Amino acid sequence: MRAEIVSIGDELLKGQRVNTNAAFIAGSLAGIGVPVGRIVSCSDLEHEMVSVLSESLERADIVLVTGGLGPTRDDRTRKAAQELLNRGLELSEDAYENLANRMKFRGVEISASLRDQAMVIEGSHVIANTKGTAAGMIIRCGEQFDNHYLVLMPGVPSEMQAMMELTVLPYFESLSATVIRHTPVKTLGIGESTLAEMIVGIEDRLPEGTTLAYLPHAAGVNLMISTIGRGQEEVNRDNSTVVDAILEKAGKYIFATSDVTLEETIGTMLSAKGMTVAVAESCTGGLVASRLTDVAGSSMYFLQGFVTYSNLAKQKTLGVQRELIESFGAVSEEVARAMATGCLEKSGADFALATTGIAGPSGGTSEKPVGMVCLAIAKKSMGSVLSKTLFMQGDRERNKLRFSEAALRELWECLRDQ
Amino acid sequence: MRAEIVSIGDELLKGQRVNTNAAFIAGSLAGIGVPVGRIVSCSDLEHEMVSVLSESLERADIVLVTGGLGPTRDDRTRKAAQELLNRGLELSEDAYENLANRMKFRGVEISASLRDQAMVIEGSHVIANTKGTAAGMIIRCGEQFDNHYLVLMPGVPSEMQAMMELTVLPYFESLSATVIRHTPVKTLGIGESTLAEMIVGIEDRLPEGTTLAYLPHAAGVNLMISTIGRGQEEVNRDNSTVVDAILEKAGKYIFATSDVTLEETIGTMLSAKGMTVAVAESCTGGLVASRLTDVAGSSMYFLQGFVTYSNLAKQKTLGVQRELIESFGAVSEEVARAMATGCLEKSGADFALATTGIAGPSGGTSEKPVGMVCLAIAKKSMGSVLSKTLFMQGDRERNKLRFSEAALRELWECLRDQ
Repeated sequence: MRAEIVSIGDELLKGQRVNTNAAFIAGSLAGIGVPVGRIVSCSDLEHEMVSVLSESLERADIVLVTGGLGPTRDDRTRKAAQELLNRGLELSEDAYENLANRMKFRGVEISASLRDQAMVIEGSHVIANTKGTAAGMIIRCGEQFDNHYLVLMPGVPSEMQAMMELTVLPYFESLSATVIRHTPVKTLGIGESTLAEMIVGIEDRLPEGTTLAYLPHAAGVNLMISTIGRGQEEVNRDNSTVVDAILEKAGKYIFATSDVTLEETIGTMLSAKGMTVAVAESCTGGLVASRLTDVAGSSMYFLQGFVTYSNLAKQKTLGVQRELIESFGAVSEEVARAMATGCLEKSGADFALATTGIAGPSGGTSEKPVGMVCLAIAKKSMGSVLSKTLFMQGDRERNKLRFSEAALRELWECLRDQ
Repeated sequence: MRAEIVSIGDELLKGQRVNTNAAFIAGSLAGIGVPVGRIVSCSDLEHEMVSVLSESLERADIVLVTGGLGPTRDDRTRKAAQELLNRGLELSEDAYENLANRMKFRGVEISASLRDQAMVIEGSHVIANTKGTAAGMIIRCGEQFDNHYLVLMPGVPSEMQAMMELTVLPYFESLSATVIRHTPVKTLGIGESTLAEMIVGIEDRLPEGTTLAYLPHAAGVNLMISTIGRGQEEVNRDNSTVVDAILEKAGKYIFATSDVTLEETIGTMLSAKGMTVAVAESCTGGLVASRLTDVAGSSMYFLQGFVTYSNLAKQKTLGVQRELIESFGAVSEEVARAMATGCLEKSGADFALATTGIAGPSGGTSEKPVGMVCLAIAKKSMGSVLSKTLFMQGDRERNKLRFSEAALRELWECLRDQ
């Protein structure tokens, strides 16, 4: 069973919106062993939708469509599907009841345009919308399209995601015969070419049905090992063999072999040691704290953060000496170390992580260019402070992200080696 | 002149990577008046690439391809293009020199796999890679495809973006005859249906060639007004007419009619008033500070941030009284107000913004559910503190984002009304 995804909306074609829906749907389908052949974004013009949908329905067993089911005028997906399949509309009582309940909760009357949201294509299996008003549909397309399935969902991510999880995935899981297993291998501090040379022997001997993909990201590269097969046991075994071989070759660059973030990995390590962390940030402006607190349960080990953007704040809040800033500059390992030490004292944490640097676009000099960052970690138990200077290349946002990634990496290494 | 975008890579089809490249390319092309008809993601299997590329080249004048030009084995785009066009490879001296310089800088020998990065399809216009090693190509496809253009670029975003800006856009800009003007209308605090009802009369009377799209996002909805025409003056005039009409109907929900973020708008307002801000965050964990400091030049008005995650940090760092936390709970308007007041004092800023809430997934009660947030703003000039409680629905990450959006909205309203 093969799927295609069709994303409707001019905003995608104009680059005003990034297509996160397709990635979510593709990832969910991978989880139930349904491979995606193509992802197509097209405009919401009816003739264009009709031609895209009919091409996809000829190639794929399941075509999942998002977008164009809302109450506004540029929402024409249902009409295109009607034309393609030559079917009328019918009122879904379940969808209407959902609508009525939602409006009652909000104290809104049901207008004609709202009632329209409960009209579905004849013969549809209705997908309840637990997060909004527009009903989704699973449609068996008849002999014209070899009884392939057309799935219509709204483009609002939260509505679509709930529909996928509650209805669409269970519906198709029972029909799928193959199993896919993906195992990410997440690395830090190594480039794509270097890693590729390191594991070339493993790539030469991949088991049948197993593939290895390189996924470069802002601060390094991840690998994805994927095996397709008939049984859970077989695909798990083949993936593990490859992952173990990679760990043997490049283990010290690998922080995870499951779908966890660096901040989650750090959280798990801190929790296991019963230790706490605090951060003092200048150039990263709160991003390191925000990433650490993206993790559920982070209040167990994250005590507090200081975003000391101005020199005065560094002095008053963290006790960095004015002379130090004047002698070495705010962006210096000396100041980073003083920030970390001050943060450790003020917070009472076991580790304090500090960042100071130049995110840009302005503020750089030839000696201290945009992209320069000084990092420091103070450790209570050791009474010691580590520091380091790194240079990145990017715009402001990318620099902030890479600075924060470098800071978290220092913390990870510190926890790993302890 | 019409374009299509083809994104190569199994990681897109498996949902392991969101396709940000396509949005960047589409947005850039829109800027030079080249509309994008379709965006297709497909696997890196050669036969599949050949069929996708040939379909796109038949429909579109320009087909822009990203991905599959790197040094690893799953990079097969160039081979597919060779097969499709029946052409050989030649060494690009410019590309080789770029490669040699980069490797010299890094102190690396040029291996065979690296040299391969400078091989291009015969008759290509080579696109210099200023950020990496793989050369890009603009290829005129010959009579077989009506002399349509095939553009091959690497999938690494920074490399592709530099190629678009330095070579590809200037190359095609000179060939384009139409002009497109997009004007965003960015709103806060109003839903899609309500906004649609408010401006229905404007949608009924759009000038010919002008369209209006709704772009819902995590904390509201934006509009995009787009006019296509022959002259810059004409499209600007038509867009302005529509934008002015919308401003008249829904002005108080609109924070921008250009491509700026809410944090940039706030920065401009603070700079104009010569005023400063500081933040005290609990549930948002540094995200509000990070967003405010995403803006270049924010050090002019952003003084500092306190991420007081634990109760003890709220007391020690911001001077929130323990009794207050015990009586009302850490998530309460009383504590938010005390955080804002403490932050104002400690920082010396003109405005202090505070957040305390429950991002989830755990920690909620029936009285204070997950998604509840208390916000407060203290103003030095007025000696007053405003506070407010809101309820959101989402997972942890979405709640953090919406909490931060609500906090920034409060600050925006405060600045607007002052």
